[in-house]
Amino acid sequence: MPPDFDTSMKFKFSILALLLEVIVIVLFGIFVDYDSNLSANLYPHFQDVHVMIFVGFGFLMTFLKKYGFSSVGFNMLIAAFGLQWGILMQGFWHMERGKISVNIESMINADFSTATALISFGALLGKTSPIQMLILTLLEITMFACNEHLVTKVFKATDVGASMTIHAFGAYFGLAAALVLYRPGLTNKHENDESTYHSDMFAMIGTLFLWLFWPSFNSAIAEARVTAIINTYYSLAACTIVTFALSSLVDKRGKFSMVLIQNATLAGGVAVGTCADLEIHPFSAMFIGVIAGIVSVLGFQFLTPVMASKCRIQDTCGVHNLHGLPGILGGIAGIVVTAIKTETRNGHVLTPAMQAAALGSTLAIAIVGGALTGAILKIPFLGQVSDQNCFDDSAYWEVPEEETVHEIHSSHRDEHSRFEAAM
Amino acid sequence: MPPDFDTSMKFKFSILALLLEVIVIVLFGIFVDYDSNLSANLYPHFQDVHVMIFVGFGFLMTFLKKYGFSSVGFNMLIAAFGLQWGILMQGFWHMERGKISVNIESMINADFSTATALISFGALLGKTSPIQMLILTLLEITMFACNEHLVTKVFKATDVGASMTIHAFGAYFGLAAALVLYRPGLTNKHENDESTYHSDMFAMIGTLFLWLFWPSFNSAIAEARVTAIINTYYSLAACTIVTFALSSLVDKRGKFSMVLIQNATLAGGVAVGTCADLEIHPFSAMFIGVIAGIVSVLGFQFLTPVMASKCRIQDTCGVHNLHGLPGILGGIAGIVVTAIKTETRNGHVLTPAMQAAALGSTLAIAIVGGALTGAILKIPFLGQVSDQNCFDDSAYWEVPEEETVHEIHSSHRDEHSRFEAAM
Amino acid sequence: MPPDFDTSMKFKFSILALLLEVIVIVLFGIFVDYDSNLSANLYPHFQDVHVMIFVGFGFLMTFLKKYGFSSVGFNMLIAAFGLQWGILMQGFWHMERGKISVNIESMINADFSTATALISFGALLGKTSPIQMLILTLLEITMFACNEHLVTKVFKATDVGASMTIHAFGAYFGLAAALVLYRPGLTNKHENDESTYHSDMFAMIGTLFLWLFWPSFNSAIAEARVTAIINTYYSLAACTIVTFALSSLVDKRGKFSMVLIQNATLAGGVAVGTCADLEIHPFSAMFIGVIAGIVSVLGFQFLTPVMASKCRIQDTCGVHNLHGLPGILGGIAGIVVTAIKTETRNGHVLTPAMQAAALGSTLAIAIVGGALTGAILKIPFLGQVSDQNCFDDSAYWEVPEEETVHEIHSSHRDEHSRFEAAM
Repeated sequence: MPPDFDTSMKFKFSILALLLEVIVIVLFGIFVDYDSNLSANLYPHFQDVHVMIFVGFGFLMTFLKKYGFSSVGFNMLIAAFGLQWGILMQGFWHMERGKISVNIESMINADFSTATALISFGALLGKTSPIQMLILTLLEITMFACNEHLVTKVFKATDVGASMTIHAFGAYFGLAAALVLYRPGLTNKHENDESTYHSDMFAMIGTLFLWLFWPSFNSAIAEARVTAIINTYYSLAACTIVTFALSSLVDKRGKFSMVLIQNATLAGGVAVGTCADLEIHPFSAMFIGVIAGIVSVLGFQFLTPVMASKCRIQDTCGVHNLHGLPGILGGIAGIVVTAIKTETRNGHVLTPAMQAAALGSTLAIAIVGGALTGAILKIPFLGQVSDQNCFDDSAYWEVPEEETVHEIHSSHRDEHSRFEAAM
Repeated sequence: MPPDFDTSMKFKFSILALLLEVIVIVLFGIFVDYDSNLSANLYPHFQDVHVMIFVGFGFLMTFLKKYGFSSVGFNMLIAAFGLQWGILMQGFWHMERGKISVNIESMINADFSTATALISFGALLGKTSPIQMLILTLLEITMFACNEHLVTKVFKATDVGASMTIHAFGAYFGLAAALVLYRPGLTNKHENDESTYHSDMFAMIGTLFLWLFWPSFNSAIAEARVTAIINTYYSLAACTIVTFALSSLVDKRGKFSMVLIQNATLAGGVAVGTCADLEIHPFSAMFIGVIAGIVSVLGFQFLTPVMASKCRIQDTCGVHNLHGLPGILGGIAGIVVTAIKTETRNGHVLTPAMQAAALGSTLAIAIVGGALTGAILKIPFLGQVSDQNCFDDSAYWEVPEEETVHEIHSSHRDEHSRFEAAM
Repeated sequence: MPPDFDTSMKFKFSILALLLEVIVIVLFGIFVDYDSNLSANLYPHFQDVHVMIFVGFGFLMTFLKKYGFSSVGFNMLIAAFGLQWGILMQGFWHMERGKISVNIESMINADFSTATALISFGALLGKTSPIQMLILTLLEITMFACNEHLVTKVFKATDVGASMTIHAFGAYFGLAAALVLYRPGLTNKHENDESTYHSDMFAMIGTLFLWLFWPSFNSAIAEARVTAIINTYYSLAACTIVTFALSSLVDKRGKFSMVLIQNATLAGGVAVGTCADLEIHPFSAMFIGVIAGIVSVLGFQFLTPVMASKCRIQDTCGVHNLHGLPGILGGIAGIVVTAIKTETRNGHVLTPAMQAAALGSTLAIAIVGGALTGAILKIPFLGQVSDQNCFDDSAYWEVPEEETVHEIHSSHRDEHSRFEAAM
């Protein structure tokens, strides 16, 4: 059992959380009001996205055998704070007469903004405290809102499903922070950094709700909504078949790997995001899904181990393979499509140069921002756990006694040994 | 293993259930018909509420280590019967030419009516038989429909998200029944009255689907639908941050408690219910959520143990803290808001006096009705389990042999002892 | 532990899957385009059906203690391939100017088509390889599309909730294949062909999402959409009460059985399918649900064991009782209703003769098609597992070491025995 939580921690976390909530309420009191034109049209879309954020991301990360409470619980904490902070940060760029208007669409955008912090959380999973994650959420959503404004209002690029502004941004932000927060003590695989049979089953709940509602994610703020739905649906389906095929192919015994099925099947949704609502025809969407599946499987299989051992980047959930590389792929697809076809959005012709600028700025801001945030999170004051207590809920949670199958097994062994010794 | 289910039980339960179903079908044949004006507009809202009732309430109660089958199964039984009975009981107050019209809105209201019985089930969880629960459902929904009529048609009070008529009603009905059904033998904590790691994970499925779809619950029958959505969304978010902060603060080692995260995070949805569709501004909704979180956490931490030991009220799921106190808080918020602002609903000005009357009548009818129902359920004929078999699925279900982690542990110990004895 | 997967298998599966995906993309490139009239009206309905296919069917089959990865994983594989193949097979019957138009409605129909393969998968669960299942999906959806065309365009019969064309078709197709693939070695119950406590809990996730969204399934392509929703809702509710009653009644100790609650509660949704959007009045829908519940419970209790022992049909999930018999019941209900009332659909009067023809053709095509498919799947080349490795994920998946509670128990026993032997 890990040692008791530093008791000073409880005051630090509680005071930080309460302080942030008070600040948010005061800012809401000053700046936020109902939109005068409240339509419920987008509400089913909003609910799908909402389920993705809390159930999808939350359960996807429960694959670790002893970190399920933290995965689903801190995911909820981050998202519940982020959706309040996101309204403010995104709203400050679009104020009218000193007021931020809230409606279903701005709630969708706020939910979106939390996704960046949740993706970064995936890279850092098991190695950061809730105090650190609240600070990261605060900083990342602030920078996300700036980059999003740059991409959509300055460059006037399209990124309707947010391949670049959410997925690539969240991934490289988290990876840069992970690099700064590198733990040499975790070079050898930590005994808790693995799944059990049931933790893998819980993670599939997350996978499926993400997979199913991804068309809503990519189409929620699209002009050509049904086109975005159709493209995303087929990209995901094609990606899934390829993921199964490659998962078997890259394994020496030809067996499927749950980590690939849980993650790489979703890469098609990420990669088709930027051009989801463009008329690229379903077969092109499928082609994008196929490439995304290939890139993602190969990333998990060959790149993640190398990044951990050579590049000092420990990426717990492999967000580089699910959000990073497929996000860049989405950005590139946007460049290619706008180079081939003339597409107009909001009265502006989309150009490959501006799409490339959007991708470049996103990566640059994410990496610099993530590294700076990582440096801030390194302040010892913030309650980072020791290497030994990584990936273990009991550092932060009251955990029921017979907590995991693994523990019983060990306690059995212990009794056995004591018994032998006594003879 | 508990002793075999009394074989006479199977006839009692089966005959009661079949009899009730026959009565319902006959009454439907006589009274119920399709509404002539069938619109599918509210169907997505209905589905969200439907998910809350069956998945949300069902899985929220699966936290007990050996009572998951009963939690999710009896929840389904109660809700499936209640939604039929609710149409009749609510419909009798609104008949036109001797007919009850069914449409999506009346189906939502029927789903709502089952929530009262499911909340009361939470207080009684693990201590009552399915026979008792069918009778409770029958009686509670009948009284709920009367009180709802009183509140909305006689007092013309507003309670759009049903803080009073569902949450407070269901909680105090269940608590009054629990008082009457008090079991002195359970004064010391029952060994099965606790969670395991995976049962807590299953419960989080319930928590998240309740949390996510609560805006649909509070807005389903609202005039100002989007206002109700926005207020509920922010109340829940603020409540969640406060719940995490206080969960750490009230624990001596600063650790989070799953029971608080599973339950108190939802109190914001309950408390904002009464005035969800009033223009209270998002920051006020957040403020209500904050108070609800504080009340709920403190209730779980300090009040529930006292109620069990001093007041002879054993509240298994802590419904007093999730539905009871936040429900009263919602009623009070309604009184305050109608006192400050002039609000009109259905052509009537809302008055604090009528809001207070609604809250008072709800509490009175719930407590008297619950106590009477408890007295009826006490009839030994109805198959209440012995104290020893409380909180144990195997009293009512065929359970797979290696049922819980705990059992293996014990059986291991047993073998061990036998082995030592044999030496 | 099962022996290593035949390494040649990985090439066979991967090449087959990649080849199929390439063929699909080429066919999409040639034939498929966006519909010119893209409406998002049906999108919430689509999402409900989508959840049923991936979460509902997927988790419903996770009840086996060591086959959860395969259940939810291969379910995803089959559905992701099937929804692409279904668009093509259904589309070839409705081409306009050489093109298949994709819109939300055709995506719903494609999701529907995958349900047939998933139902057949339920009969074969644990006994077939993913190679076999891809081939079955290909063949079954092709034949399904032909039969559906026959039923709806030639016979002009109604089957709005697809009691016949999906449920009965999928069930008898799978049962005929199971007959051909009969394994004498599994006559005695396989040790892995059973559930654990938590696998039964996971299966309830599937049950509930199927139960909740079944009204969307039956109404998705209905003209009288809300009528179909109401009828399905009440049929399911009545079926659920009857299932609980009979589950207790048929057990010698009066206990409920999870397999019945997981499955027979859904039979009301199947049986009301054919006449879901006809004005049969809610009480008739309930009556259909009651009969479906009775038939399904009795089927699970008495028929399935006989079919396995006498008829050489091993039906792992009991699809005969959930989809087969209730599907026929739905077909018969359609005959009866069209005989009693004059109903018109698409300008044609529905006749009992045509309804009967639809039922007959469906059963005939399903049984012949399933038997032929079973014969093809019998080719040894396709990687069928040995009897011993049936119902075991580790034949196809990398499985975490301490995989199930059961294993620990056994490994404990093993150590113990070795220990005793050593003394």
